[in-house]
Amino acid sequence: MPSSNPRARHFPPPMSSTSLSPEGEEVAEEEQVVTPWEVSAKQGGKIDYGKLIDQFGCQRLDQSLIDRVQRLTNRHPHVFLRRGVFFAHRDFTDILDAYERGDKFYLYTGRGPSSEALHLGHLVPFMFTKYLQDAFKVPLVIQLTDDEKCMWKNLSVEESQRLARENAKDLIACGFDISRTFIFCDFDYVGGAFYKNMVRVAKCVTYNKVVGIFGFTGEDHIGKVSFPPVQAVPSFPSSFPHLFSGRENLRCLIPCAIDQDPYFRMTRDVAPRIGYSKPSLIESTFFPALQINKYAFSGGQDTTEKQRKFGANLEVDIPIKYLEFFLDDDAELEQIRREYGAGHLLTGEVKRRVIEVLTELVERHRRARAAVTDEMVDAFMAVRPLPNMFS
Amino acid sequence: MPSSNPRARHFPPPMSSTSLSPEGEEVAEEEQVVTPWEVSAKQGGKIDYGKLIDQFGCQRLDQSLIDRVQRLTNRHPHVFLRRGVFFAHRDFTDILDAYERGDKFYLYTGRGPSSEALHLGHLVPFMFTKYLQDAFKVPLVIQLTDDEKCMWKNLSVEESQRLARENAKDLIACGFDISRTFIFCDFDYVGGAFYKNMVRVAKCVTYNKVVGIFGFTGEDHIGKVSFPPVQAVPSFPSSFPHLFSGRENLRCLIPCAIDQDPYFRMTRDVAPRIGYSKPSLIESTFFPALQINKYAFSGGQDTTEKQRKFGANLEVDIPIKYLEFFLDDDAELEQIRREYGAGHLLTGEVKRRVIEVLTELVERHRRARAAVTDEMVDAFMAVRPLPNMFS
Repeated sequence: MPSSNPRARHFPPPMSSTSLSPEGEEVAEEEQVVTPWEVSAKQGGKIDYGKLIDQFGCQRLDQSLIDRVQRLTNRHPHVFLRRGVFFAHRDFTDILDAYERGDKFYLYTGRGPSSEALHLGHLVPFMFTKYLQDAFKVPLVIQLTDDEKCMWKNLSVEESQRLARENAKDLIACGFDISRTFIFCDFDYVGGAFYKNMVRVAKCVTYNKVVGIFGFTGEDHIGKVSFPPVQAVPSFPSSFPHLFSGRENLRCLIPCAIDQDPYFRMTRDVAPRIGYSKPSLIESTFFPALQINKYAFSGGQDTTEKQRKFGANLEVDIPIKYLEFFLDDDAELEQIRREYGAGHLLTGEVKRRVIEVLTELVERHRRARAAVTDEMVDAFMAVRPLPNMFS
Repeated sequence: MPSSNPRARHFPPPMSSTSLSPEGEEVAEEEQVVTPWEVSAKQGGKIDYGKLIDQFGCQRLDQSLIDRVQRLTNRHPHVFLRRGVFFAHRDFTDILDAYERGDKFYLYTGRGPSSEALHLGHLVPFMFTKYLQDAFKVPLVIQLTDDEKCMWKNLSVEESQRLARENAKDLIACGFDISRTFIFCDFDYVGGAFYKNMVRVAKCVTYNKVVGIFGFTGEDHIGKVSFPPVQAVPSFPSSFPHLFSGRENLRCLIPCAIDQDPYFRMTRDVAPRIGYSKPSLIESTFFPALQINKYAFSGGQDTTEKQRKFGANLEVDIPIKYLEFFLDDDAELEQIRREYGAGHLLTGEVKRRVIEVLTELVERHRRARAAVTDEMVDAFMAVRPLPNMFS
């Protein structure tokens, strides 16, 4: 198993490009494998998400739950909920039950800052997290695991820290509310209450256990073995005394891609043994590029004539996947699906619409990111109370 | 191998008692084993320190080196140097060479705070460290590994922290100069520059390597696997920016019992790979109680008549060992050895002298400890510059 970054394995093509060339050539022939380091599907290239739910033991995020979110938040559910991008959960109903009773929660998500600029797929969980923050009006902590990047990618401490700050700008550009958001880098923040929780977690997890979960070998360095508690402890409010002092029972909801599930299975296993609540999760599929192999790039036919006659195979069509992720207008998407599937629309026409949608998204993000100053990064990363975080 | 505390395995009897009842009953029949967790001798109960030097690859601290220390410091060498209690070293000559050229160094020692009150043997390295600090006029950092205690001994975080502060009082009672001494607990101090160095070290050490050094098994928790870098990084001045900023090339000298050598073999192996100097070591034997088995409690004869006739076997005599550690007067010790060996002194008489010496030591320490206030502990543990640390 290649040693790589737990939080950066669902890489789409670069955001600066709208090229749709696929990734994921190393698809395993036999079995689908989904870990923080590896995502590979069976022959055919499609991850079987239903099977993944069974395999991981999480729950399907069904329509009744989406309806309930709509009712509780009084908002049209996010496109990623409506389209099944976030498709699985663990104890999300507990969060909603408590919310309905008037109890708030906090959001925790994160990123391993490996590359200079974020890609579209990196932003998927953050775009969704922003929606959750706005809809539920709750605080959010974002962990940038510069320590883990430094250990996995053979980057220097300084370079990892620089990348973390650069990535923070991309996250801030997603529009998080500074009055409810704390962004931190591990190299800055590990210590104190956070480190105490790391030790509490580490005591409860044997080496054999992490080998079972993460597949480490004896030749892996001990930094890797030490890391899982670092990603675990932001799930516990007591890791943030400047935010949640006196609210140590606050529940935590983690939006993430499902490849991060192993970290939080471990966290949920440990939590009750150290007197803490298990975090809840709401989990997404992977961004299309990685789950579709190169033979399935387009579902359209080779020639205009064939396309007019047979229509496109929407199941394996990358342009349609992109539209499902990023075209908010349900009616327009349905129309495109219908016309493309029936052969009335050509692949080139659908691609043009994809490029429009992505270009608008990328341009909006580019402008927002250009407006993020170093002072804003400092402000988001300052260890400070968030006075109105639940209002 | 029992899971225990790396820094607390050379336990003598409690300091509050002058009972000389021996420990170390589980002496291995075949081989001597010396690790941070286990000290066992061959049949006969004596650790072969010469063999240990060969086995560990360290150097003998010979008379010429002791003479050189005397010349450089202009002081009578400490009783622990004269009597061979500190008997081995690694690159101590480098420290002295540099010192002779006018370059200073800093001292690093530590303790795992497992018990409420320290025992006499716990204080041996600290008594010697105080002498080194006074003689060379250099700064000292003392690490209290409350995190490690919490992980090895199944203590709560809070109890480990409490014990660390209690132990700090015993250390302060040894008379360290507050203007040159920084005491820290890991739970308070891990973070920032210290944590960055932990990550730099962890990247360089494989799991197989720590298994080879420390004998961990797959059933050990990952907190144990994560710990060696925590004990390693105080060897590097950049872990203490508030003390050594701008002096990142300062050399480090570690006084410790030789069972800690494995930690620092690892540290010295890693140091050049991350651009740092190797720490030097000056290493002691174990406090007598642990290295002498129960059959060797007294070297005196069963009856007064036999003792008068045959004299005592000084090699296995515990009272003589105690006097070698703690009776500063060389002439008196030599006289006792001669008369006891020849049968002119009885065991009871030697024991009485031991009790006098120990009682004085214990009483002096007890009084000094009683005078240590919480404010003094706070002052020693404050993260602050030490303005006159090299004068």
